[in-house]
Amino acid sequence: MNAAILIIGDEILSGNTLDTNSNFIATELRNIGISVSRIFTVPDEIDAIKNGLKAATEIAKIVIATGGIGPTKDDKTRTAFAEFFNDQLVLDDETFEHLKQLFIKRKREHLLEINRNQAVVLSKSRIFQNENGTAPCQMIEENGKLVFSLPGVPFEVKPFIRNQIIPFLRERFSLKHILTQIISVVDFPESLLSQTIEDWELALPENISLSYLPVGNRIKLRLTAVGNDLDQLKNQLSAEVEKLKPYISENVISWNGNEIQEILKEILIEKKLTLATAESCTGGELARLITSVSGSSKYFLGGVIPYDYHKKMEILGVSEKTILEKTVVSEEVAQEMSQGCQKLFKTDISISTTGVSGPNSDEFNSEIGTVFYSIRINDFEKTNRLFLPHLDRNDFAHFVSQRVLQDLVSYLVKD
Amino acid sequence: MNAAILIIGDEILSGNTLDTNSNFIATELRNIGISVSRIFTVPDEIDAIKNGLKAATEIAKIVIATGGIGPTKDDKTRTAFAEFFNDQLVLDDETFEHLKQLFIKRKREHLLEINRNQAVVLSKSRIFQNENGTAPCQMIEENGKLVFSLPGVPFEVKPFIRNQIIPFLRERFSLKHILTQIISVVDFPESLLSQTIEDWELALPENISLSYLPVGNRIKLRLTAVGNDLDQLKNQLSAEVEKLKPYISENVISWNGNEIQEILKEILIEKKLTLATAESCTGGELARLITSVSGSSKYFLGGVIPYDYHKKMEILGVSEKTILEKTVVSEEVAQEMSQGCQKLFKTDISISTTGVSGPNSDEFNSEIGTVFYSIRINDFEKTNRLFLPHLDRNDFAHFVSQRVLQDLVSYLVKD
Repeated sequence: MNAAILIIGDEILSGNTLDTNSNFIATELRNIGISVSRIFTVPDEIDAIKNGLKAATEIAKIVIATGGIGPTKDDKTRTAFAEFFNDQLVLDDETFEHLKQLFIKRKREHLLEINRNQAVVLSKSRIFQNENGTAPCQMIEENGKLVFSLPGVPFEVKPFIRNQIIPFLRERFSLKHILTQIISVVDFPESLLSQTIEDWELALPENISLSYLPVGNRIKLRLTAVGNDLDQLKNQLSAEVEKLKPYISENVISWNGNEIQEILKEILIEKKLTLATAESCTGGELARLITSVSGSSKYFLGGVIPYDYHKKMEILGVSEKTILEKTVVSEEVAQEMSQGCQKLFKTDISISTTGVSGPNSDEFNSEIGTVFYSIRINDFEKTNRLFLPHLDRNDFAHFVSQRVLQDLVSYLVKD
Repeated sequence: MNAAILIIGDEILSGNTLDTNSNFIATELRNIGISVSRIFTVPDEIDAIKNGLKAATEIAKIVIATGGIGPTKDDKTRTAFAEFFNDQLVLDDETFEHLKQLFIKRKREHLLEINRNQAVVLSKSRIFQNENGTAPCQMIEENGKLVFSLPGVPFEVKPFIRNQIIPFLRERFSLKHILTQIISVVDFPESLLSQTIEDWELALPENISLSYLPVGNRIKLRLTAVGNDLDQLKNQLSAEVEKLKPYISENVISWNGNEIQEILKEILIEKKLTLATAESCTGGELARLITSVSGSSKYFLGGVIPYDYHKKMEILGVSEKTILEKTVVSEEVAQEMSQGCQKLFKTDISISTTGVSGPNSDEFNSEIGTVFYSIRINDFEKTNRLFLPHLDRNDFAHFVSQRVLQDLVSYLVKD
């Protein structure tokens, strides 16, 4: 079973808004065994939307469209759908009632009239009510295809997909099982890895596929197995992983984890270790990454972002002498930061970053793109340096944070 | 002049990787007056890539394709391009030499042979060398269309686009000027706003277009003006903005800023104010957002993330009594956090967040989705509460951080 996603919105094509809907929808569909074979992004124009619908319905059984159903003039999805499906737009009483209740609840009854259009739907559509906004989701079934039209706001898309559309699709089709296992490999260049496991890869059964996903210095090998019998699939997948082990075991940091912060969680909870962060150039990204995992409060006690260098002295006890002699972007400052952090938060582990991501340098004229990070695990300490002048500010913070956690994980695993 | 983007990669369609390339490329193209009219995302399959090329070249003069040119077996872009353009793949000496130098520089000469394929290009392509990776960018010109093939890794895509492709396109075509102005409006529901400015919108000249971009509780009105004479465009645009002012002035927090953190920067630098953060439930996102702006070190002195509640007491001086009586997710704790933060960092402004984003509650059984945030500007203090049970962890942190900065900006503007 396959699907296509149709993203409707000038704001995506202009680059003003990053499309996160298609990533979310693709992930949720994959988890129930529906693979997305295309994503089409089209502007808020009737013909473009109709062309997108044509291409999407030609290639996929299920089409999920988002966007273009707000109350403003630049939203054209409803009209395009009516023309494409040769249908009438009608006011749906149940949806209008739902809308009324929403406005009463939000004490905005004066806005009802202009939002009346949000209750106008295709006459032959099935409606899913919106619990988080004004526009409902419509589903049209025609020629064996299911086409959904959703709002574009991610806050509304997510609950629609998770709570209504996925359960609907599950019930509607008897879907094959799908199993995924992600193996994280470090210190192994992609090309060499590919060469090393070539024989194993070529001998994989037809229902198991392999992808390489490089993330920072880590490569995620994703094995995807599809079949009717779940137990058989599990056995088959673990048998293939067993065969792979001799080739790569020494470089594997996780046999079944996706994000580095999730891998870290497993290890810290298992080893009963606590963690704190002291960030300068990553500006909060490291803590954000760690706390993006549910349950992180079990091991993450907190962090400090002493952005101004005086705060490194005041809060973390970095010595002024070190800063003046070695500059703020130095191995020594990174070390004193992680030391101060471990002391402040009383944790087993502390990590620190100090660097300069540009476009402008700091008051010490540090070389742009330089970062030192220090990792402390009880008495163990290691400082590393990275030089990333080609990365912009946000990529820099993201890359460094990924790398710090990856190193921490590999020290913890080797430990 | 228009363009289409072709994203090639199973990892995007599976939801495993969020596509950020198309957003970056679209933004850079828009800045030189090239609008993206479609984005096609296709799997690593020869036929799918060829179909994507067909659709993209039919609709646009410029096609920018990314992905599928690594050294591994699952990368098929080169072959698909050769078939589509009916061309031969040949080893390019200059590219191979470039590759050799890269491997010598990285001390990985043993890897050269397996990466040799990276120097194999279409015989009729123009090559742009890759300064940050192994695969070059190829450009094919056929039937008046320009088709670029780039690697998929964002770290490589960005410098290719910014340093090579944009300058090439600028030189190649004499492009119209494009001017954008973003006006940020708060406390104005989209539907009411649309009604209020309808007459003005309908009277806009043909070369100026308007979009609504809702972000959190803020609406960005984006005006885009296209024309041949830059000075004339500037005058025209500012005349239209003048006409708009009477309708919305009271609700505008910025007349020409894009992201809230950039708007904040302008205000803080102008007013010479410093800022610090104390985050619990946002876990670093607030600081990350603030420090994502270049030059933020001028006003952002630092932040603390006292994730564990004992750290709120130890580092920020929140009283145990308040926590035990009011629980950790309370107005009073938010207030004491911002107070402690202002003291710790000695800043004019401090902001704090305390809440619980789920999926699990905290040790005080706080209601999932609740957050209190406190904003202090010198002696002024205001605490607000949000209830966002429908948001997942990351959206929660993101929404709250946006909202806190938005409120801070509106207090500073009204001040």
